[in-house]
Amino acid sequence: MKLLRVGPAGAERPALLDGDGNLRDLSGLVPDIDGALLADESALAGVRRAARGGALPVLDRPEQRVGPPLGRIGKIVCIGLNYHDHAAETGAEVPAEPVVFMKAPDTVVGPQDTVLIPKGSVKTDWEVELAVVIGRTARWLETDAEALAAVAGYTIAHDVSEREFQIERGGQWDKGKNCETFNPLGPWLVTADEIADPQDLALRLWVNGELRQDGSTADQIFPVAHVVRYLSRFMTLYPGDIINTGTPAGVALGQPDPKPYLRAGDVVELEITGLGRQRQVLKNA
Amino acid sequence: MKLLRVGPAGAERPALLDGDGNLRDLSGLVPDIDGALLADESALAGVRRAARGGALPVLDRPEQRVGPPLGRIGKIVCIGLNYHDHAAETGAEVPAEPVVFMKAPDTVVGPQDTVLIPKGSVKTDWEVELAVVIGRTARWLETDAEALAAVAGYTIAHDVSEREFQIERGGQWDKGKNCETFNPLGPWLVTADEIADPQDLALRLWVNGELRQDGSTADQIFPVAHVVRYLSRFMTLYPGDIINTGTPAGVALGQPDPKPYLRAGDVVELEITGLGRQRQVLKNA
Repeated sequence: MKLLRVGPAGAERPALLDGDGNLRDLSGLVPDIDGALLADESALAGVRRAARGGALPVLDRPEQRVGPPLGRIGKIVCIGLNYHDHAAETGAEVPAEPVVFMKAPDTVVGPQDTVLIPKGSVKTDWEVELAVVIGRTARWLETDAEALAAVAGYTIAHDVSEREFQIERGGQWDKGKNCETFNPLGPWLVTADEIADPQDLALRLWVNGELRQDGSTADQIFPVAHVVRYLSRFMTLYPGDIINTGTPAGVALGQPDPKPYLRAGDVVELEITGLGRQRQVLKNA
Repeated sequence: MKLLRVGPAGAERPALLDGDGNLRDLSGLVPDIDGALLADESALAGVRRAARGGALPVLDRPEQRVGPPLGRIGKIVCIGLNYHDHAAETGAEVPAEPVVFMKAPDTVVGPQDTVLIPKGSVKTDWEVELAVVIGRTARWLETDAEALAAVAGYTIAHDVSEREFQIERGGQWDKGKNCETFNPLGPWLVTADEIADPQDLALRLWVNGELRQDGSTADQIFPVAHVVRYLSRFMTLYPGDIINTGTPAGVALGQPDPKPYLRAGDVVELEITGLGRQRQVLKNA
């Protein structure tokens, strides 16, 4: 299923994109798309039945803003340097184990919402990422099969990053990862049964129509199952948590000087196989 | 006011500790102690009036578990190496600007709740910290006065830290800061009007009765107002966010070998002037 949330920011209603491209209203069936729904197998089964039944009301689409496909996000755990080609372009060693940092859920906006360049920023950069949505509480998972069973679905995350804040201002990366609007998410939460192999997805990102990132999750140093299993040893993952699994090569940071960091008016588009497309216009905060 | 939340984990009710040491029920007045309440001046004024009126029902105290004093925490931003004596004991340079990392709100437990030593951990460490609770949305604050006006109150945070995970396992500190139960919080959210000077608070921590940390917020490299102002340039702070402002000297990491890391059965007690006391028993996860 392709689950999404449409409507004004903070007042989105749950919906479903059906096989014919129709937007179907789920608000009569479930209160929201969130961790509680993803953890509730019978509620999810009810949504599936209703989707197959074809009787869900159709929502008028062009009027609808698309919000992030998940409400009440618990935490966002991010993996750094998780693609061989990206590690190479930044001059970093291939990490021996996953590099972990965090974004606050309040950075999340919809997939077409405006992204704000922070005041004083001259190094705002892009990163297309496969986002994993957790559906079961996960502690100390032993196997890849258990790890994949904890995954409710997938979506696109734009892990917007301010490189000066992240790297040149002392300490930890989180300082450059948590600016307002820095995590466009969506458009859809695609349930895991629709993604045959999370390690065979193409990721692409364009800036002003120019293809800048063109990678594949096949190039991930630590695949999705490994990442989930690994993280479950250091923290408990809960339904409604998100893991941003890293970005392939092609970010501004990896380009020769002068690096093409984002400016107001730039348009960024992102796409991952089967997960849809995002488009954001950059504005100054 | 001293606001708190009592009852079973996940079902705490809002309460107030009055000047006579009585626990007063606030659940007839406000749904919870959270960012929405802290941002709502008229609701807060109503609580103050009711507290002065003395007519709030008294809660029976000995039966009550004390939960974290804030519900629906947005994000927890942490400042590293923010005391001169702690920077010195870890051999770190005094940072030129605040070091920032993050804890997930799901690490928060009550001030007397069990703290779990993660599976495989041999370096679980203690850190007593002054926690700042945000009451107003803060973006790019210009002055210390604006910064302090954004502070709703203060409480104690125990920033439990796994040093191997934090420092020896590659990448960013967050990996050692987000284990389950790693952020006891409370007992009270003390409103800012009751704390005359946040830079004149004694912080103490005992392990099995032995005094291990004995510091003062006067020793903070970046005082509370500076930290809030600084953070507001890198991220938006919202009502219900928390800032853990760093720990003074005396952590296990700073001791000579063999370092006295925490073990199952250890008892940690924490105290900050005017903010009450925490006590946790350590158990293996």
